[in-house]
Amino acid sequence: MSKAQVGIIMGSQSDLKVMKEAAEILEELGVTYELTIVSAHRTPERMVSYAEGARDNGLKVIIAGAGGAAHLPGMVASMTTLPVIGVPVKSSNSIDGWDSVLSILQMPGGIPVATVALDGAKNAGILAAEMIGAFDDKVADNLAEYKKQLKEKVLESAKSLETHGWRGGKIGFQ
Amino acid sequence: MSKAQVGIIMGSQSDLKVMKEAAEILEELGVTYELTIVSAHRTPERMVSYAEGARDNGLKVIIAGAGGAAHLPGMVASMTTLPVIGVPVKSSNSIDGWDSVLSILQMPGGIPVATVALDGAKNAGILAAEMIGAFDDKVADNLAEYKKQLKEKVLESAKSLETHGWRGGKIGFQ
Amino acid sequence: MSKAQVGIIMGSQSDLKVMKEAAEILEELGVTYELTIVSAHRTPERMVSYAEGARDNGLKVIIAGAGGAAHLPGMVASMTTLPVIGVPVKSSNSIDGWDSVLSILQMPGGIPVATVALDGAKNAGILAAEMIGAFDDKVADNLAEYKKQLKEKVLESAKSLETHGWRGGKIGFQ
Amino acid sequence: MSKAQVGIIMGSQSDLKVMKEAAEILEELGVTYELTIVSAHRTPERMVSYAEGARDNGLKVIIAGAGGAAHLPGMVASMTTLPVIGVPVKSSNSIDGWDSVLSILQMPGGIPVATVALDGAKNAGILAAEMIGAFDDKVADNLAEYKKQLKEKVLESAKSLETHGWRGGKIGFQ
Amino acid sequence: MSKAQVGIIMGSQSDLKVMKEAAEILEELGVTYELTIVSAHRTPERMVSYAEGARDNGLKVIIAGAGGAAHLPGMVASMTTLPVIGVPVKSSNSIDGWDSVLSILQMPGGIPVATVALDGAKNAGILAAEMIGAFDDKVADNLAEYKKQLKEKVLESAKSLETHGWRGGKIGFQ
Amino acid sequence: MSKAQVGIIMGSQSDLKVMKEAAEILEELGVTYELTIVSAHRTPERMVSYAEGARDNGLKVIIAGAGGAAHLPGMVASMTTLPVIGVPVKSSNSIDGWDSVLSILQMPGGIPVATVALDGAKNAGILAAEMIGAFDDKVADNLAEYKKQLKEKVLESAKSLETHGWRGGKIGFQ
Amino acid sequence: MSKAQVGIIMGSQSDLKVMKEAAEILEELGVTYELTIVSAHRTPERMVSYAEGARDNGLKVIIAGAGGAAHLPGMVASMTTLPVIGVPVKSSNSIDGWDSVLSILQMPGGIPVATVALDGAKNAGILAAEMIGAFDDKVADNLAEYKKQLKEKVLESAKSLETHGWRGGKIGFQ
Amino acid sequence: MSKAQVGIIMGSQSDLKVMKEAAEILEELGVTYELTIVSAHRTPERMVSYAEGARDNGLKVIIAGAGGAAHLPGMVASMTTLPVIGVPVKSSNSIDGWDSVLSILQMPGGIPVATVALDGAKNAGILAAEMIGAFDDKVADNLAEYKKQLKEKVLESAKSLETHGWRGGKIGFQ
Repeated sequence: MSKAQVGIIMGSQSDLKVMKEAAEILEELGVTYELTIVSAHRTPERMVSYAEGARDNGLKVIIAGAGGAAHLPGMVASMTTLPVIGVPVKSSNSIDGWDSVLSILQMPGGIPVATVALDGAKNAGILAAEMIGAFDDKVADNLAEYKKQLKEKVLESAKSLETHGWRGGKIGFQ
Repeated sequence: MSKAQVGIIMGSQSDLKVMKEAAEILEELGVTYELTIVSAHRTPERMVSYAEGARDNGLKVIIAGAGGAAHLPGMVASMTTLPVIGVPVKSSNSIDGWDSVLSILQMPGGIPVATVALDGAKNAGILAAEMIGAFDDKVADNLAEYKKQLKEKVLESAKSLETHGWRGGKIGFQ
Repeated sequence: MSKAQVGIIMGSQSDLKVMKEAAEILEELGVTYELTIVSAHRTPERMVSYAEGARDNGLKVIIAGAGGAAHLPGMVASMTTLPVIGVPVKSSNSIDGWDSVLSILQMPGGIPVATVALDGAKNAGILAAEMIGAFDDKVADNLAEYKKQLKEKVLESAKSLETHGWRGGKIGFQ
Repeated sequence: MSKAQVGIIMGSQSDLKVMKEAAEILEELGVTYELTIVSAHRTPERMVSYAEGARDNGLKVIIAGAGGAAHLPGMVASMTTLPVIGVPVKSSNSIDGWDSVLSILQMPGGIPVATVALDGAKNAGILAAEMIGAFDDKVADNLAEYKKQLKEKVLESAKSLETHGWRGGKIGFQ
Repeated sequence: MSKAQVGIIMGSQSDLKVMKEAAEILEELGVTYELTIVSAHRTPERMVSYAEGARDNGLKVIIAGAGGAAHLPGMVASMTTLPVIGVPVKSSNSIDGWDSVLSILQMPGGIPVATVALDGAKNAGILAAEMIGAFDDKVADNLAEYKKQLKEKVLESAKSLETHGWRGGKIGFQ
Repeated sequence: MSKAQVGIIMGSQSDLKVMKEAAEILEELGVTYELTIVSAHRTPERMVSYAEGARDNGLKVIIAGAGGAAHLPGMVASMTTLPVIGVPVKSSNSIDGWDSVLSILQMPGGIPVATVALDGAKNAGILAAEMIGAFDDKVADNLAEYKKQLKEKVLESAKSLETHGWRGGKIGFQ
Repeated sequence: MSKAQVGIIMGSQSDLKVMKEAAEILEELGVTYELTIVSAHRTPERMVSYAEGARDNGLKVIIAGAGGAAHLPGMVASMTTLPVIGVPVKSSNSIDGWDSVLSILQMPGGIPVATVALDGAKNAGILAAEMIGAFDDKVADNLAEYKKQLKEKVLESAKSLETHGWRGGKIGFQ
Repeated sequence: MSKAQVGIIMGSQSDLKVMKEAAEILEELGVTYELTIVSAHRTPERMVSYAEGARDNGLKVIIAGAGGAAHLPGMVASMTTLPVIGVPVKSSNSIDGWDSVLSILQMPGGIPVATVALDGAKNAGILAAEMIGAFDDKVADNLAEYKKQLKEKVLESAKSLETHGWRGGKIGFQ
């Protein structure tokens, strides 16, 4: 059954171009998800009901992305016992992304957010899959396969480089 | 009548050593206030009821102080039409205060927080008094008097320095 | 009567592309304003007369925007008892905006500036309206209506996303 | 049965004063753990065998703390499908902790590390418990109870402050 | 005749512990000076009259020190054709000095401030002497002598180190 | 006679697009100058002979611009008693200009560099003119006239804005 | 015989556009090299075998480039006694390059990495040649010749500027 | 024979408390060295003669430490074909060490400096030994032995921790 295991939320539609990478990789890894918009500052009641209902709705992990003074991941984390993964989004008025990173990372004692790299939605998806894969061998196998592919791509490009040289020619690793 | 015009809230008792300066200056400027602890992350329901009831309770301004990933000022601002002044507190695990400053300052469009300097609770109190003083001549007079005193203290120390020299002696401004 | 309640000033014509957002939102919120150029460094006398006359001219709040080593908001704040909102502008030679932010935010004790986000002129306008709305129910109602619209826009885009999926299709929140 | 569910590792004995908080909170939350020293740079083979064997040894989550150019969390994450929580430690020669934070947070696509705040070992422990609690109701109940206690402590200190005033006397919230 | 050639001003008495080094080195270099307190934010009229009268009062250079959002050097520079040297002071509430540095350094086109290092009042004094020494051979000779002494101190400590070794013994440069 | 009073040097031809602004403003202010390329790292002997000969060649001030780890201004300052103005240039591989700014600004005690804003070559030219104008009334008059023009341009754009409104229409300062 | 003296490795094919500059300059300086892709996070076993075999394979220096949380240089350094030069690469999701710089530079005691500037692959190549040139007079001569050419290019552009003026005309160094 | 292979220089006697760690580790690794004071800004001629004579004096590597706007490593590198290792020293007036780090690291193309961590003099010594060890098997063996000891210390403390638990008792790795 395809009931969502991961909830992906974001503060605004403009975050979707970053956050959709979490959805894509979850599909690839065989993890069900739901995706919607929940704004800490514009729809605080919706945020409360989403966070408080998440566990009962069957979610195992929440991925929350936001930019600037990014309060969504931390506020959601304060209202659920589920793990919350925070994705700092480099929005247009951000000061080079530092505001999003620090607003999500530097949570006070008692209320953790699992923070990933700036615009790191893909890694947020993989991290969510790892949390589920710790208890689900099928997902763990998918993760192992995914890591194997990463490795093979590196080995292929290394081999090509060593064979043809970095100018596409003959110099290089001999 | 002593009904509070300004609400001073902070995320934790440890913020009091900074935030009490807001209370002290408001007393000096003749503005009534209330002061308590409201944590965005530990008591989210209390935060909601405080913010939503603030206007009806007669408050004209809210001062909110917090450290680290400081979500209290911005979350309160999202739930009231009153102006909210944010005080970034340099807490013990803060990265030199940058986290508090950016979490409070860099609010998204639609939800402003009037941010003051790091640990600037005194200025938060003065700013609240200025907001009230814009509509209340008595408070404005107190502010004018306060600014006059600041000026006189500078003039006195300048005069002393010019008279006695910076070594407490004769060299200097003659 | 349309006497200005809010004075919007900026250091240079080039700041207008940012600062006009304060004017636009004030119009939307039914707050009267005036807007002009006052440079701390190029027209210091004009700055002094603007700041010292602001209260007598009926202003309730001043919004001041400037970039780089941005002294206008703080200097104006030192010469009036009105609240001053500072907008750090990311000008062309700015070091990523840090100079404007810190020059406006980190005011010394006694002279607060209500600082908003980098290029946050829209939020400066809303903050000014909130200060007035604390004493004027009509403006407060406009603010409440504005916040309601923000919320509705989020709910609409959430609904659309949940209905059509993030690919504009069928995957997503089910 | 006390088989460890969480593995806590750190780069050096000097990190223990920070990292022990992860152990303490896991005990409080009823989650079993093991704790040892594994250095990415001084014992790379040990790191490889720890990471590669973690899943088979029954671990569900790994918490890795390190300071400066902190490679342990990311390297371990590259060799397991388990979720890895990274704790940036502010070591003595660190540049204010920025090096640890960025070395752990900014992982490339494919290899996430769930980063918590600088010196945030306690939150790392709670986050590990949340990951386990997503699949284990007993741990989830312990987390809910822990959050309830956090809330009650805030409410008590708020009540005390409101009753006795911030000077320990009568002024304040009335 | 001892008429002051250099005016040393600072925003507050607490800056004196840094700024007195400018006075000391000017005395050593045979340059006359005056020293007093002028606050941009607390005594703006005094600042205006000081800056506008400086040239007629015979000053050749102004040294201005201030901390936090440091507006004194730039504002004075806007009201005189004399060169103004700015000393960023690391005051107690400063964010590691970045605020003072950027508020003084990043002046807009048309209004330069000659900025020296954080707490660099001694260098400000030397720089003022260099400006005067460009037109006054006696001061230039004093500067040359001062630089010679700096060099000799280095050569002496190098010689001692090479003779006795860095342990005060025999190892080292042989 | 047009013997150069100001020497403008830069580390590489690519700095010319920034540094030429110093030349342009010096011409406008009636100050003679020379301009050439002197690299601290590629032509150290040339740097030594330029710096050591500068005073005897009649220069009163040296303006030195460089990017990245910018050593030219400080090294030249160490070999002359003339004042040296440093211009941090934001070169292509710079880390947002921070490297140039700090390499020039943070000189050790004894060897000041008068640092201006990032890419602030125009201000370097004005500062050089101010140093000369302190002893030359004709240059001082040119500076006064230049500042008057800056002011008039602001007043004109203010008047235009107040007359026509910020939309080029009727709203605004009334 | 052309056995490689320098090994150039990088975390991903996308680093090649930066890292090829190391190869180019090594060719120019007459130093043999090999170049390939080795990812710390995607091919950890390959990294181990590369690092552990480097000395026996005849390498004298390893140049390793990586971006973001860049672990390759430090991890390789931990597994060889050869000197390792680290090149921080400013990759697309980097926070302005700070993450790469600090992840490579701030290595713990015992495991140095010779770090060069952000995207400084050319300098990495020169540094490798200098290490070899310390023991190989032919390479040292090539380096001396290279430095001479750098100097001559500067002198030529200086001469051209002095002859033709910075406008390509007559003003300038006379 | 004890002719120095490594030259350790520093800008001031106050850097010795950091820089002596380079000397200590070189002794431990069996590499000869000399150590003295050479200031780029106070003794530029001495710096030139030291750098230009280094190769002929038999040095293979130069280690140069300096704080603030640290020009010594880069200037020395510009005048020799030997590899130069730069140690950024966190001096008392440094802005948290950023100035030293960036002044040394961000060298322009053509003039590399092998930069180590802030205050990383020990690693500078090890790096120098690695450069020599690439051509000297005895030194390479000493390095291998040193790395083995680092590893053994970690294994011992890990074993102790696993045996006695992190409280010195029985809890932990079982």
